Amino acid sequence: MAKKDVYYFGGGKADGKAGMKNLLGGKGANLAEMSSIGIPVPAGYTITTDMCAIYYARKGKFPQSLTGDANKALAKVEKAMGKKFGDSKNPLLLSVRSGARQSMPGMMDTVLNVGLGAKTIPGLIAKTGDARFVYDAYRRLITMYADVVMEKAEGIEPKDGHSIRELLEHTFDARKEKRGVTEDTDLSAADLKDLSTEFKRIVKKRLGKPFPDDPAKQLWGAIRAVFQSWNGRRAIAYRRIEGIPDDWGTAVNVQAMVFGNMGETSATGVAFTRNPATGENVFFGEWLVNAQGEDVVAGTRTPLPLNKATKTSGTQNMTSLEEASPKVYKQLAAIRTKLEKHYRDMQDIEFTIEDGSLWMLQTRSGKRTGPAAVRMAAEMADAKLIDRNTAIQRVSADQIDELLHPMLDPAKEKTATLLAKGLPAGPGGGVGRAVFTADDAAAWAKKGEKVVLVRNETSPEDVHGMHVAEAILTAKGGMTSHAALVARGWGKCCIVGCGTLVIDSAKKKMRVGNKSIKEGDWLSLNGSTGAVYSGAISVLPAQPDKNKWYKKLMGWADAVRQINVRTNAETPEDARLAVKLGAEGIGLARTEHMFFDPKRIIHVREMILAEDEKTRRKAVMKLLPFQRRDFTGIFRAMAGKPVTIRLLDPPLHEFLTLDTKQIARLAKDLGIKPARIRARIEQLHELNPMLGHRGCRLGITYPEITEMQARAILEAAVNVTKKKIKVFPEIMIPLVGTRQEFENQEAIIRRVAEEVQAETKTKVNYLVGTMIETPRACLVADSIAEGADFFSFGTNDLTQMGFGYSRDDSGGFLPEYVEKDILAADPFQALDQEGIGQLVQMGVTKGRSVRSDLKIGICGEHGGDPSSVMFCHRIGLDYVSCSPYRVPVARFAAALAALEAPRKGKTSKKK
Amino acid sequence: MAKKDVYYFGGGKADGKAGMKNLLGGKGANLAEMSSIGIPVPAGYTITTDMCAIYYARKGKFPQSLTGDANKALAKVEKAMGKKFGDSKNPLLLSVRSGARQSMPGMMDTVLNVGLGAKTIPGLIAKTGDARFVYDAYRRLITMYADVVMEKAEGIEPKDGHSIRELLEHTFDARKEKRGVTEDTDLSAADLKDLSTEFKRIVKKRLGKPFPDDPAKQLWGAIRAVFQSWNGRRAIAYRRIEGIPDDWGTAVNVQAMVFGNMGETSATGVAFTRNPATGENVFFGEWLVNAQGEDVVAGTRTPLPLNKATKTSGTQNMTSLEEASPKVYKQLAAIRTKLEKHYRDMQDIEFTIEDGSLWMLQTRSGKRTGPAAVRMAAEMADAKLIDRNTAIQRVSADQIDELLHPMLDPAKEKTATLLAKGLPAGPGGGVGRAVFTADDAAAWAKKGEKVVLVRNETSPEDVHGMHVAEAILTAKGGMTSHAALVARGWGKCCIVGCGTLVIDSAKKKMRVGNKSIKEGDWLSLNGSTGAVYSGAISVLPAQPDKNKWYKKLMGWADAVRQINVRTNAETPEDARLAVKLGAEGIGLARTEHMFFDPKRIIHVREMILAEDEKTRRKAVMKLLPFQRRDFTGIFRAMAGKPVTIRLLDPPLHEFLTLDTKQIARLAKDLGIKPARIRARIEQLHELNPMLGHRGCRLGITYPEITEMQARAILEAAVNVTKKKIKVFPEIMIPLVGTRQEFENQEAIIRRVAEEVQAETKTKVNYLVGTMIETPRACLVADSIAEGADFFSFGTNDLTQMGFGYSRDDSGGFLPEYVEKDILAADPFQALDQEGIGQLVQMGVTKGRSVRSDLKIGICGEHGGDPSSVMFCHRIGLDYVSCSPYRVPVARFAAALAALEAPRKGKTSKKK
Repeated sequence: MAKKDVYYFGGGKADGKAGMKNLLGGKGANLAEMSSIGIPVPAGYTITTDMCAIYYARKGKFPQSLTGDANKALAKVEKAMGKKFGDSKNPLLLSVRSGARQSMPGMMDTVLNVGLGAKTIPGLIAKTGDARFVYDAYRRLITMYADVVMEKAEGIEPKDGHSIRELLEHTFDARKEKRGVTEDTDLSAADLKDLSTEFKRIVKKRLGKPFPDDPAKQLWGAIRAVFQSWNGRRAIAYRRIEGIPDDWGTAVNVQAMVFGNMGETSATGVAFTRNPATGENVFFGEWLVNAQGEDVVAGTRTPLPLNKATKTSGTQNMTSLEEASPKVYKQLAAIRTKLEKHYRDMQDIEFTIEDGSLWMLQTRSGKRTGPAAVRMAAEMADAKLIDRNTAIQRVSADQIDELLHPMLDPAKEKTATLLAKGLPAGPGGGVGRAVFTADDAAAWAKKGEKVVLVRNETSPEDVHGMHVAEAILTAKGGMTSHAALVARGWGKCCIVGCGTLVIDSAKKKMRVGNKSIKEGDWLSLNGSTGAVYSGAISVLPAQPDKNKWYKKLMGWADAVRQINVRTNAETPEDARLAVKLGAEGIGLARTEHMFFDPKRIIHVREMILAEDEKTRRKAVMKLLPFQRRDFTGIFRAMAGKPVTIRLLDPPLHEFLTLDTKQIARLAKDLGIKPARIRARIEQLHELNPMLGHRGCRLGITYPEITEMQARAILEAAVNVTKKKIKVFPEIMIPLVGTRQEFENQEAIIRRVAEEVQAETKTKVNYLVGTMIETPRACLVADSIAEGADFFSFGTNDLTQMGFGYSRDDSGGFLPEYVEKDILAADPFQALDQEGIGQLVQMGVTKGRSVRSDLKIGICGEHGGDPSSVMFCHRIGLDYVSCSPYRVPVARFAAALAALEAPRKGKTSKKK
Repeated sequence: MAKKDVYYFGGGKADGKAGMKNLLGGKGANLAEMSSIGIPVPAGYTITTDMCAIYYARKGKFPQSLTGDANKALAKVEKAMGKKFGDSKNPLLLSVRSGARQSMPGMMDTVLNVGLGAKTIPGLIAKTGDARFVYDAYRRLITMYADVVMEKAEGIEPKDGHSIRELLEHTFDARKEKRGVTEDTDLSAADLKDLSTEFKRIVKKRLGKPFPDDPAKQLWGAIRAVFQSWNGRRAIAYRRIEGIPDDWGTAVNVQAMVFGNMGETSATGVAFTRNPATGENVFFGEWLVNAQGEDVVAGTRTPLPLNKATKTSGTQNMTSLEEASPKVYKQLAAIRTKLEKHYRDMQDIEFTIEDGSLWMLQTRSGKRTGPAAVRMAAEMADAKLIDRNTAIQRVSADQIDELLHPMLDPAKEKTATLLAKGLPAGPGGGVGRAVFTADDAAAWAKKGEKVVLVRNETSPEDVHGMHVAEAILTAKGGMTSHAALVARGWGKCCIVGCGTLVIDSAKKKMRVGNKSIKEGDWLSLNGSTGAVYSGAISVLPAQPDKNKWYKKLMGWADAVRQINVRTNAETPEDARLAVKLGAEGIGLARTEHMFFDPKRIIHVREMILAEDEKTRRKAVMKLLPFQRRDFTGIFRAMAGKPVTIRLLDPPLHEFLTLDTKQIARLAKDLGIKPARIRARIEQLHELNPMLGHRGCRLGITYPEITEMQARAILEAAVNVTKKKIKVFPEIMIPLVGTRQEFENQEAIIRRVAEEVQAETKTKVNYLVGTMIETPRACLVADSIAEGADFFSFGTNDLTQMGFGYSRDDSGGFLPEYVEKDILAADPFQALDQEGIGQLVQMGVTKGRSVRSDLKIGICGEHGGDPSSVMFCHRIGLDYVSCSPYRVPVARFAAALAALEAPRKGKTSKKK
């Protein structure tokens, strides 16, 4: 079928259909679709988005043919509606609306009631018998038209800072004041008639041109204005934010007006074909008698429940449409069924009843909560309405996440007092009483109180307090700060970088603006949005285990994904939890987390304070039995699954954050002078520890640390092997930037591994690989891959170094960057595919250019971020690794990726 | 000519020539060359490097033809020397030496005196009348042969840890002890004869085989052993370090022995055809009567001056060869002239006089100091011995640098006491008395004392002390730390990252190992090598201005280079100095350096402490007149040359390093509470400031700072323009990582620029560009280039972020990395072309892909490093920018680059 400029719809027919969104816009396409399947839609026509392009290309001139085509369509509309545009007896009124490919709500302009004027007003009054209604519609037309067509579309700047709309509204309000009334509806027909004359006078005086009385002139002015509004300031700004191309253009929908406000037999309403909050398969909506659509949306009048299913205890006594007009309701319910069968998805619909006749004004896919999305998708697939892959694609990974965490009750959250906003570092809701030190958190928790731990920033010393807290709130730090990492590891609600908090831990209070919060005050945190509320909001619990639809959908997802999902864990407990959540291995076990145990830290400190290799080796070797026990535990928990262990990574001074008292005690314990400890702390101090003496740089300077760790891993592997448990250790060298660094550490590891295997006469299948986390490692990945068995992208550090953003300090400017649209998203949360992604891609390509079977994963925080998982799938990684509670999200995101995007290289995951 | 396996030389003839180094090795090629131009060379032949490859390919088997070819060559040698190999009357003795393409001094093996045995010894005694000489030669042959041929080449591991050589030398020493003598020469002929019998017994017992008596067997054993030594442990290790390919192989030179130790008419010596220290065109050398070459080199006897020109006040009374043997000297002087004319370069030669006959053993291009290199090159070009381009290529950029700084007297430095080694951050020598605070430095200097300022690390508060110091020494920091940057800017000697110093500033002393240095003790620093000496070493001054050869050569260099050289400077004084040193513009003016002035810092602090935009703007604007004045000064100094000004870059807390007293005073000055200042300092504290709130992130958060700086620059430009001085400001936005950041700041700058031009009715040609210093900026350079007029690579930060090395902290491991060969060089000194270079290359390619005329430079410290300048030339940068004192080095390096390497894109620099 050749493309046309004008597409008619109405009376059970339509030139267009739902699939033509690019040409007709979303609204026009759905109106055509509804009409063509026999749903009552006020007739109308759509001028295409192509015409928008022509309009701009020809500088506002339409092709000659357009008027004829539009008039032909208008004649059909008149026929379908049984009215005539501009007719003095039975006039047809029109709405003129925009409609882009992708919804841009409120960003473009609309003109309603087009066609009212000297000739048509008397006829409409005669026909409706309601002069007040007609003059009200007339004064609305004048206001909209003057605003949209005569001022904005003409590019006229408001004089004295007041727009024509403001001027007219002011005149209207003045009349109400004069009459001593507060409601618009209290003005009489005479008042409204008088006002419309006054309006026309003001328009002419202000804009230098009269309001056009000719319906055709009104119509074409409105059409032009809608096209023109595609390039209005608001629309352009919105497109920039949403990334909508400028050349898409908008369509224009010209449609017969229907009125829900023509008396007690008229009404209007909105509904969802299923419950959008729970997903339950019931018809769900609201309606208002004698009202226009805006009234439902604006909330000026309280809407009534649509039917019994929608009623709550609070609305039990209100009259539903089902009760008030059973016949119309039945008609609407049939349409609901038809639409859902037709669109195979839950629909969000708008309807108007004009004098007893039902008209559908809109249908579109409805928004829903996570639990609702999961239930609907699973139920629709079970009912064969959709297939399983479509069911998966109906749910976003973020919606899966909603099911994994307790949530603040959304209804309660709406009315809560917002105290501050920070970075959403650990999703879900958390409610408790404010405490300002880890010890206080422990003390309050012991008394059975729920607490929110509030700190400037957290450190390893705070973990006992963090562990008992319902939620963690920090003033500093970014998405990968200590607080964020630890909280996500525990699936705990956490908000960081909340810069407006002024915390006085000593006095156990904080100030936010002029609001003061003291110890014991209730706080509620939404860790998914970063909102902090004062007071306690009720929490909805998370029970994914009991959700049959969730379990069903995740099963389908696992069947389609092509990439493995591992977890970041370093304790047997976390490892077991992660396996329960679906982890297929450990992608990152951070050995330094094990160093902070009170029994071990003394040896760690002894090691750091050693002044020669012999003393250091002695201290290091004291850690061997501890580390061996750790690894044995993890290997048992992950029986048969691969475990990637990263060698010591953080700068040593992290283990030496001591106060005077602690220094004195340590000095006594080790039998050395406190001055020596202080001198060593001073010597280890670094201005930028993130770029300092850490990672493999430690192992190169102190090879005995690498030796000890390699021995602990291999001995643990031997122990477990002897128990007939399969074990696949992958030893990972951190922060490698040059091939020589890798080779230096690899040689030590392989030597120790040979020794242990010879000593124990037991063979262990181990790999030696490296983190790829410095930009340089990506640049020379081909050279590094010649020795490495595997790569694991540490995208936290890669993001830090690639952007030059300290994860601990970026809270100072990153939120502003996202707000000012300098960054589309926090790059510590969603991998920056444009920039950092190039480095990752380069690392993969170069690495596999010398070793085509190179095993490659990602173990940064991005491993649990849906858009990043999609990226990892696309570029052919073997696995992603994330904190245990993100594992289901990553599994689901991987399934979505498999359904949506082609994949480089490997096409199926390892079973 | 077809390739042969054996190349004869001698008697004024030769099969080979100097150009055949790859086939004959350096030694063989030069011996052939000398012989063919009629210089007396002991005859011999060279077995080619190709034969080395065959030797290894065939596992030690030579092709059949080789023996015949070698014997034919040997016959020619016998004829030329008038002796016969293995002859009982007049035996010819041979030396067998290695000779690779590139000199590998001492890394391979040599056997001398080949051909001595039962048959030849009596004849040689009869002919020389010196049994002692003959038996001494014989025991040396046995020792060398047993060691090189019978033990090492056979791969025999020394028993009980003692090599055969040690065993024989021990036997020799025991005999001396028995005889009660200390000198080898005090042993009699009988002793030596007896010893040689004893030696042969030991060899047989220890190695299980007799020492071969047959001359031919000796010869072929020695030839094999020399080939074998190509793959000796030392040779392989040396090749790894020097990057010499394994498959080059060595040649073997078999040459007639001549003896300088055959009595008073024999002698040996080494000489340079010009003075290698000063470059003066005089014959310069040393000699020894009745001695072998090793004696001159080993320094066991004090050599005599070769001629009058070589004599010094200390050697005035010694006898020169010129005086002792005028005839031989005249012959040698003629050879000197001939060789220099032939090779067109200063030669380093070895000669031996055997019983009155002069033999040349070696000639090669001689090593020389920087001043000598410059003078020789210029003088040779003036004398038309070489052309100007060759003259340039005879000098390295580092040698140019030697002329720009005072140097420790090399002779004195050799015998000085090394205290410690650090990173060579500021070249040249510096001597002074140790002081440990900037204030002490100022106080001592005021008294007229020269001081070396010793600090853990320096900060902007130390600059007054740094300025008066002769040299700066720090325990921490890397090549781009504060101390290093400031010192290089001033051309001052500086050593950083000297980790073994344990400094106690409070007690004004430091400890290095068990050596203590207190205030007032003398220190001498070699900033070109990083060596720190205790005590005072005399210093040779730098006077490039008075060096006519230097000026001539630099002129030639400027004529050939294709890349511009700018300077990093932010004061009119530095700008003028740099212009004097040849700078063609300013590539980096750091505006924050101007903020530390005592009159301004108060406003800077006021700005930082402001809590709202209005107060901040007020404080910022107080800085406007100061900055305008700064820029006016710089523009005047650089009249007509481009000036790149970088907007505020460092994190704000750098301006707030205050002690309690300073806080109190500042609080009083600003009329606010000290607690507020402390709170702000706490708020600004960052864990990794290098990756924190700095660069354009400041300008985005506080746009008023950018506005003020843009206004100051433009107003200054207008002022200067009105004075009819040309001005080309290039405004540079720092630390850009995304296009949006650039656009945000660019918009502010262009708006202010339009305002200033309109207000003053003056047009200014300004550019807006950006530093490319984050890895991400390189990755998205195409996107950034759409807005930017120019790029300037900030390779310091790029290196920091690309490697993940904090320039302030890398002193902790970088020296060890270089030592352990994990890095070939400190990447803050020489740009890491393998890794970081890829980012730079990517930035250039992507940037010019959207804007082919994009102006691109580099303003990191690498701009003054010769290998980095070469890289910049090659990839097509428009300019490099470095500290003023590095400008001549960069100019020269650019000339060398133009002569040696092809260039991408642009082929000529802007005049």
